[in-house]
Amino acid sequence: MIQVGIVGGTGYTGVELLRILAGHPEARVRTITSRREAGTAVAAMFPSLRGICELDYSDPAAVRLDDCDVVFFATPHGVAMAQARALTAAGVKIIDLAADFRLKDPAEFERWYKMPHACPDLLSEAAYGLPEMHREAIRKARIVGNPGCYPTAIQLGFLPLVEAGVADTEHLIADAKSGVSGAGRKEELGLMFSEASDNFRAYNVGGHRHHPEIVHGLEGFSKAPIRVVFTPHLTPMVRGIHATLYARLTQRDVDLQALYEKRFAAEPFVDVMPPGSHPDTRSVRAANVCRIAVHRPQGGDIAVVLAVEDNLVKGAAGQAVQNMNLMFGLPETTGLTTPPVLP
Amino acid sequence: MIQVGIVGGTGYTGVELLRILAGHPEARVRTITSRREAGTAVAAMFPSLRGICELDYSDPAAVRLDDCDVVFFATPHGVAMAQARALTAAGVKIIDLAADFRLKDPAEFERWYKMPHACPDLLSEAAYGLPEMHREAIRKARIVGNPGCYPTAIQLGFLPLVEAGVADTEHLIADAKSGVSGAGRKEELGLMFSEASDNFRAYNVGGHRHHPEIVHGLEGFSKAPIRVVFTPHLTPMVRGIHATLYARLTQRDVDLQALYEKRFAAEPFVDVMPPGSHPDTRSVRAANVCRIAVHRPQGGDIAVVLAVEDNLVKGAAGQAVQNMNLMFGLPETTGLTTPPVLP
Amino acid sequence: MIQVGIVGGTGYTGVELLRILAGHPEARVRTITSRREAGTAVAAMFPSLRGICELDYSDPAAVRLDDCDVVFFATPHGVAMAQARALTAAGVKIIDLAADFRLKDPAEFERWYKMPHACPDLLSEAAYGLPEMHREAIRKARIVGNPGCYPTAIQLGFLPLVEAGVADTEHLIADAKSGVSGAGRKEELGLMFSEASDNFRAYNVGGHRHHPEIVHGLEGFSKAPIRVVFTPHLTPMVRGIHATLYARLTQRDVDLQALYEKRFAAEPFVDVMPPGSHPDTRSVRAANVCRIAVHRPQGGDIAVVLAVEDNLVKGAAGQAVQNMNLMFGLPETTGLTTPPVLP
Amino acid sequence: MIQVGIVGGTGYTGVELLRILAGHPEARVRTITSRREAGTAVAAMFPSLRGICELDYSDPAAVRLDDCDVVFFATPHGVAMAQARALTAAGVKIIDLAADFRLKDPAEFERWYKMPHACPDLLSEAAYGLPEMHREAIRKARIVGNPGCYPTAIQLGFLPLVEAGVADTEHLIADAKSGVSGAGRKEELGLMFSEASDNFRAYNVGGHRHHPEIVHGLEGFSKAPIRVVFTPHLTPMVRGIHATLYARLTQRDVDLQALYEKRFAAEPFVDVMPPGSHPDTRSVRAANVCRIAVHRPQGGDIAVVLAVEDNLVKGAAGQAVQNMNLMFGLPETTGLTTPPVLP
Repeated sequence: MIQVGIVGGTGYTGVELLRILAGHPEARVRTITSRREAGTAVAAMFPSLRGICELDYSDPAAVRLDDCDVVFFATPHGVAMAQARALTAAGVKIIDLAADFRLKDPAEFERWYKMPHACPDLLSEAAYGLPEMHREAIRKARIVGNPGCYPTAIQLGFLPLVEAGVADTEHLIADAKSGVSGAGRKEELGLMFSEASDNFRAYNVGGHRHHPEIVHGLEGFSKAPIRVVFTPHLTPMVRGIHATLYARLTQRDVDLQALYEKRFAAEPFVDVMPPGSHPDTRSVRAANVCRIAVHRPQGGDIAVVLAVEDNLVKGAAGQAVQNMNLMFGLPETTGLTTPPVLP
Repeated sequence: MIQVGIVGGTGYTGVELLRILAGHPEARVRTITSRREAGTAVAAMFPSLRGICELDYSDPAAVRLDDCDVVFFATPHGVAMAQARALTAAGVKIIDLAADFRLKDPAEFERWYKMPHACPDLLSEAAYGLPEMHREAIRKARIVGNPGCYPTAIQLGFLPLVEAGVADTEHLIADAKSGVSGAGRKEELGLMFSEASDNFRAYNVGGHRHHPEIVHGLEGFSKAPIRVVFTPHLTPMVRGIHATLYARLTQRDVDLQALYEKRFAAEPFVDVMPPGSHPDTRSVRAANVCRIAVHRPQGGDIAVVLAVEDNLVKGAAGQAVQNMNLMFGLPETTGLTTPPVLP
Repeated sequence: MIQVGIVGGTGYTGVELLRILAGHPEARVRTITSRREAGTAVAAMFPSLRGICELDYSDPAAVRLDDCDVVFFATPHGVAMAQARALTAAGVKIIDLAADFRLKDPAEFERWYKMPHACPDLLSEAAYGLPEMHREAIRKARIVGNPGCYPTAIQLGFLPLVEAGVADTEHLIADAKSGVSGAGRKEELGLMFSEASDNFRAYNVGGHRHHPEIVHGLEGFSKAPIRVVFTPHLTPMVRGIHATLYARLTQRDVDLQALYEKRFAAEPFVDVMPPGSHPDTRSVRAANVCRIAVHRPQGGDIAVVLAVEDNLVKGAAGQAVQNMNLMFGLPETTGLTTPPVLP
Repeated sequence: MIQVGIVGGTGYTGVELLRILAGHPEARVRTITSRREAGTAVAAMFPSLRGICELDYSDPAAVRLDDCDVVFFATPHGVAMAQARALTAAGVKIIDLAADFRLKDPAEFERWYKMPHACPDLLSEAAYGLPEMHREAIRKARIVGNPGCYPTAIQLGFLPLVEAGVADTEHLIADAKSGVSGAGRKEELGLMFSEASDNFRAYNVGGHRHHPEIVHGLEGFSKAPIRVVFTPHLTPMVRGIHATLYARLTQRDVDLQALYEKRFAAEPFVDVMPPGSHPDTRSVRAANVCRIAVHRPQGGDIAVVLAVEDNLVKGAAGQAVQNMNLMFGLPETTGLTTPPVLP
């Protein structure tokens, strides 16, 4: 039984880890920390977990995590890197759901996250936790940087085109729409119900932190340079990301459907839908799946890829557990087979 | 392994049965019927079930159900009673999620559902499938009439007061709010997004089909007559019922919190919350739980009970599986322990 | 042309006043203040007002309000009473949309709002701004305490029963459901989209600040004492209140429909709907109307009254303008005739 | 006073025309027809119009429209063209909110709408009712084909780029998101609350009826050919369209902000927002405005234009009234100045 610690368990990714791990037959959460809620029962904050989670939040300053097998960081950026050296030295594996171990270049990390990186050497050994692209590295890693929610859907959606070298990779367009939970569980005016409901808007069109992660992720699988215009939007739903991806084809005779089906044939968590499909976000709600459909409107030279995921599952906590399974030699789907919740 | 048939599998209760039974270790759905969708793959209609349900819809006229151990009817009213005699004769147990076996009096059934009852004798032997009130009868039953969504929350919420005889049972008030999925998966103008969203309204204030079911259900546990004013409302959410119940106390010194905690202490699917709580519907989303809190505003003589459930789970498909577990001698919680999905 | 000042113009009631007054032919907003946003253009904060409102927010410490004819306070509790004496002395009329001038008893104000009242003498002269109950007093008042959103719908809904003395006024039940904008434009965890969407819950069942206002408001029109159980709920929509009111009739032969129609026959902003109606909140969205339907389920002794309003209009800013019209001798409907927005 | 007839007044564009025209000082609706609802009071179907609209629906077979000055068709495709000849012969002007007079080529109309065109000669004289592009033609027209909701936002958003010839017009991308009311007031499974709420999906990626209208509309203002990939999405809100438009710039030194501001400087209903803005759909809710912001992410060669409108107002009924004002020589903004409703 894998002994699990969770640092920062009051946000949506933390509570989602608890939900998923409650059904995991090989893992047991033994410690969950929160500075602000130390001493509070988890189930008092999240009544959905009454009878399911018996833990109290621990004070991170007072609790030992080095007797865990793995620690998930469901914290703001900067927390995982501060503890990574001590934990890995103690033989504890780390899965960071924030950005500390996503970018390889410490200078780039600093540019986007406005803090110096605490352990550039560990950064270079960390695996980027997108199993469909880096499975072997994840298996061997001591530290995994779990991808952002947008980058998961966008990279999976562009990957076959980029790998096959059949599109103009310098003018990729990712028009992505996210449910509000993607912004986290925090008081912020623009995320209030009365502001975000019955409303739709783009944000950060000039630049979003997930942008470099997308570019570098795809660069590793491309012979040509990668440039992406990435436009995030806020849509009035709780969970879900819908990425609508556009790429101009440089090879007009490519069979896109076959390309995508072949690339993901062995992937348990990527579902290439039949030709003509329009995946909806609710079809993956609460499940660790990315569903993809590929179109070519009017038979033209622009490919349109539709990719959906639950931002809290395949875009965060579910993928983190998928990574844990790989790191501990378990079947990759262990604990991740509950069906989506529809309607 | 219990062999399961589902009649009428294209509605919300049908697809919810599939979702829940997909994780049930002792049951296997072998047949699912739909007259209109015969031949269609279930997963083609409900992409959320791609990779989870491999069945096609069968033509109900062409398929045999008598080799099932149990058949769930997730159909409009009137279908189950037409097939009940043949199936029970063949040794098949029946759980009807519609109203055919909820009311004991055929005349009353006819008054509310505008059709004569096809098998009054079976009606009299059927158990009313609210385990917290009729567990022993359900264990022995060949036919179970699964309760309506409103009656589940409302009966559970009033039950301790009624059993204890501490309230005026002739002036009970049940102000209930339901998510839109309670109305089923059907095209109806008032249920359109553009009509029901950002809107709130009462309906059927003059009389709702669930009314007699609530009254008769409680009568069985009361020494005094039962009269209820029941006001259903439509609230702009997909899943969930919130029942706000009012009863005038006839014994002023009763300890309501203790009364409720004691009554439901042994119940795995009824959660009495701490004093002062306000359960929210999302705390039970996708899970087979009814959460209850009890208040007495300003220490007055009116008790206010708040009861929430997921109308598709504890109010329909989850409760049906709970009944199946009882009918087949399984632990009552088998397959029903996945946590609620929050947020 | 009435010269209008608005103190505290960054909340929902402030911006709603701007929207309504933009179409008022006899009033002109000359000053709007905000401590935090002083110097900011109103239209920069609320792009919906681009091209409609040319004002900047003024620093309340630097601006003169005594050359206004009327000042609306769309502020937190406690602000209006601090400025009331100076403004009234300068001949400026005051309409407070917070609670400073709603309750007559300073001690009760202090009990609920946790601050001493700054000017009890002005409190006693202030009119309670529910025109359908206090029209003449409002006409003559220098200070109007604009009612809370819940109390408006609940008092109007109970009023005919209470005035006619045909119900048990000591066991009134007000089960009220509010859209999220009723809580104001402020960052608060429970009001976040991801918390409040697809969810329903009661709150403050033990006691809500609007409770004394409802009780005292009705007492003035009742021969018997008033006791109300008031249960507020949060429903996932932006605007709207739906009050479901229950009263036990003491006179069984009363014609409720006639009673309500007669009481409100001359009221331009109260609409008694035909028998059997279920008003929905969207039917009053963005308009200064309270729509009411009255039922008597199963011909029993409990009256059920359904009352809907837009909490920001008839429950706040619209009613405030209605009061202004009365205070300045204008036709009561001036500037308040734009139709509801549906869908 | 312009005498107005409305054919087909039970849909959202019909009821929106009633709402807008209720506040129009120079127009009076004298007749509104509905085959199915003949004899019903408008306010009985739409209680929001109680006290505002006193009309009953007339039987279209029994009523005369030739004594109207203008008739709006808020009907399915095919109705307006069947009556156009007789009405224009009687001197009645026609504004069709469906597609009968949008496309110039009868064959193309037939291809997309699956019916032959009834009056190709009138088609050729009809004006396309987008005033910002065809103001003079509209002023003189007897028949106006009011644009579709998507084409309004998309053409206005691309127009300055296309007119100036600074972008690759053969690879335009229009990623558009619509509220559900855009699909009309009709029972359709995919538009049910329980299907469309808390969900996001693309549709008709392979081809949408608004596609030819967008292409031909822009062709008239472009020296180069126009090709557009147009991806419509359904987003869980009632009103609003957000078009995110992508164009590759062929002139890198163009000042986009200045280009857009100059093009629309004199337009009362197009609002070019300051640099860096992200317009949200609620900022135009219920108002006849299209707000536009233009970006150039990372200073690259792709322009990103964000354009929002209320699909029922600037995308339908409001624009129709704007056209009526032009056709009757009224100031273009008459009756169209009520502010957006926010929140």
